[in-house]
Amino acid sequence: MVATLDLSLDAVALTAAVCDIESVSLGEAVLADAIEAALAPLSHLHLTRIGNSLVARTELGRAERVLIAGHIDTVPLTSEPANLPTTLVDGPGGAILRGRGTVDMKGGVAVMLRIAALVPEPNRDLTLVFYEAEEIDSQFNGLGLIEAAHPELVTDAAFAVLMEPTDAAIEGGCKGTLRAEITTKGIAAHSARPWKGHNAIHDAGEILRRLTAYQPQTRIVDELEYREALNAVLISGGTATNVIPDRCVVTVNYRYAPSVSAAEADAHVREVFDGFEIAIVDNAAGARPGMHLPSAKAFVAALDLPVAAKQGWTDVARFSAMGVPAVNFGPGDPNLAHMDDEECPVAQYTTCEEAMVRWLR
Amino acid sequence: MVATLDLSLDAVALTAAVCDIESVSLGEAVLADAIEAALAPLSHLHLTRIGNSLVARTELGRAERVLIAGHIDTVPLTSEPANLPTTLVDGPGGAILRGRGTVDMKGGVAVMLRIAALVPEPNRDLTLVFYEAEEIDSQFNGLGLIEAAHPELVTDAAFAVLMEPTDAAIEGGCKGTLRAEITTKGIAAHSARPWKGHNAIHDAGEILRRLTAYQPQTRIVDELEYREALNAVLISGGTATNVIPDRCVVTVNYRYAPSVSAAEADAHVREVFDGFEIAIVDNAAGARPGMHLPSAKAFVAALDLPVAAKQGWTDVARFSAMGVPAVNFGPGDPNLAHMDDEECPVAQYTTCEEAMVRWLR
Repeated sequence: MVATLDLSLDAVALTAAVCDIESVSLGEAVLADAIEAALAPLSHLHLTRIGNSLVARTELGRAERVLIAGHIDTVPLTSEPANLPTTLVDGPGGAILRGRGTVDMKGGVAVMLRIAALVPEPNRDLTLVFYEAEEIDSQFNGLGLIEAAHPELVTDAAFAVLMEPTDAAIEGGCKGTLRAEITTKGIAAHSARPWKGHNAIHDAGEILRRLTAYQPQTRIVDELEYREALNAVLISGGTATNVIPDRCVVTVNYRYAPSVSAAEADAHVREVFDGFEIAIVDNAAGARPGMHLPSAKAFVAALDLPVAAKQGWTDVARFSAMGVPAVNFGPGDPNLAHMDDEECPVAQYTTCEEAMVRWLR
Repeated sequence: MVATLDLSLDAVALTAAVCDIESVSLGEAVLADAIEAALAPLSHLHLTRIGNSLVARTELGRAERVLIAGHIDTVPLTSEPANLPTTLVDGPGGAILRGRGTVDMKGGVAVMLRIAALVPEPNRDLTLVFYEAEEIDSQFNGLGLIEAAHPELVTDAAFAVLMEPTDAAIEGGCKGTLRAEITTKGIAAHSARPWKGHNAIHDAGEILRRLTAYQPQTRIVDELEYREALNAVLISGGTATNVIPDRCVVTVNYRYAPSVSAAEADAHVREVFDGFEIAIVDNAAGARPGMHLPSAKAFVAALDLPVAAKQGWTDVARFSAMGVPAVNFGPGDPNLAHMDDEECPVAQYTTCEEAMVRWLR
């Protein structure tokens, strides 16, 4: 059974429809099928599916090719109160769409689908990339998998717009992100006789103390301000309720300015947790803003919007590494991304659609 | 398919056979079947099975009835290096049996099986209780389930011996055990913008700080010394590697002297973690030594061994609550219970068998 998406719906209704097809990371198949079915009838687009990711390209022989990308997965749902299906509520400044994905980033996905339907003859050749698994370990990232399998589909663009939430403003660059597992090891023993063992969870207290005491930097890069952060995101220890735990793992996430290299971030985290066993399990450098490049300037001029720094890591860093300059631009307040009460004023979906169409027509 | 246990094997070989039938808590069915099959041919025993627990009783009309009990489950296995199947190795003082259950408490179970086979006409009526799920939450405890379903099978004993490991010495009483979950709550947010949320794992650092700073008491009860202990046994927090965690749970285990009531233990833990959300999920008071009672004195006299305090909580507390005085006596060093390198000098299995047979013939 294929869920259906009607591209003649307006950007608001289409965003709600995309959100209501649940697609937590690694569970994107139903949404990918629906997008494929919606794009298949559009004869100006050449479709390629890779896993649960889709690339749709015009081949009009234009002087420039631009790429618009968005991930179709979300972080896990919240169950109490449920944050799906979406609800449309009244806000002080107009209607608000509430629910998982309304910010990160199914509004962007809906705008991309609208562009596919509304702009059959764009002024630039167009590559639309709908991809899976952005919210989890980078080995699963659909954009990365497309680049590995078919680089010719994505690397020929002169400029890319990633429709991650920016509150409908233009955000340049992005911070890097490093994930590390800090492990303490103890000696198992019966919890009635702990003096015969050594408690690995108690030892993890020092890791949490260092995290609490940590003073993150704020760095200016190409005139934009990036706030760094170092946080525990997961903790796990112990095997049974009557056994002194012999192992505890704290997973930390370091978000670092784009002026810091991946190697420097690695060294910094090792220094902060000096004395502990550390495994760096994921490390993706950021992207400098790069707003001085001609394609970026053309985009900014067409939209006529201010430019700010992107705090979250986004796949603009992947485009940056491919040699494709890229910016973030999409509906939704990035501060609400991943929060239980994710919501977005619906006017932003329309604004973003109109801005993108203005640039491409 | 039923695994078989040959009761004509000596106590050492039979212990190894019992250990080699894996029976981690809630997975005791195969071992219970094997015990049932081994006892069924013994006409002097009346068998009752309740879940994966078995009660075998003589009905000889003796002046006194005594009960011997042992749990048939173990804590989880260790996989690297595997601690099952058992191995027999040379030690400085003789052969040693190594592997999960060799201490806690399949040696005791093997001795009980040997008593069933070797003493068809005991000088006291005998109730043998082989029971499931001692190592996990008390709601699953087989002895508790037998008492609830068929109290007449267990409450008519004048005295009970629980064959938990005591290094083949007599250990009186036991400590109480309380389990509590201490929860911190935060606010979820994207980990690139932690200033929009609140980190619940970082807040758990204070719980670990209090645990590390905690000074446990040692209390003398009926001339025996009980060392208290308060430890984290499990910790868990976080939902995804790019989300600021909104919840962290630290499970703590408080082991308290038998002079402390369950209510006092509850109040103490709440005081230690004052300011945090606390749920007491399990609380079982200890048992005072009670070695002044006549049946206990007769047992000690027959075995002629010294009496010490039991540090671990054991089901002597359940017998104590039923009004049945009970002691701990079994092969294996209790300090090795639940440890990866659980092992026992094989001479202890034989010593315990001989002592019990001496008492019952």
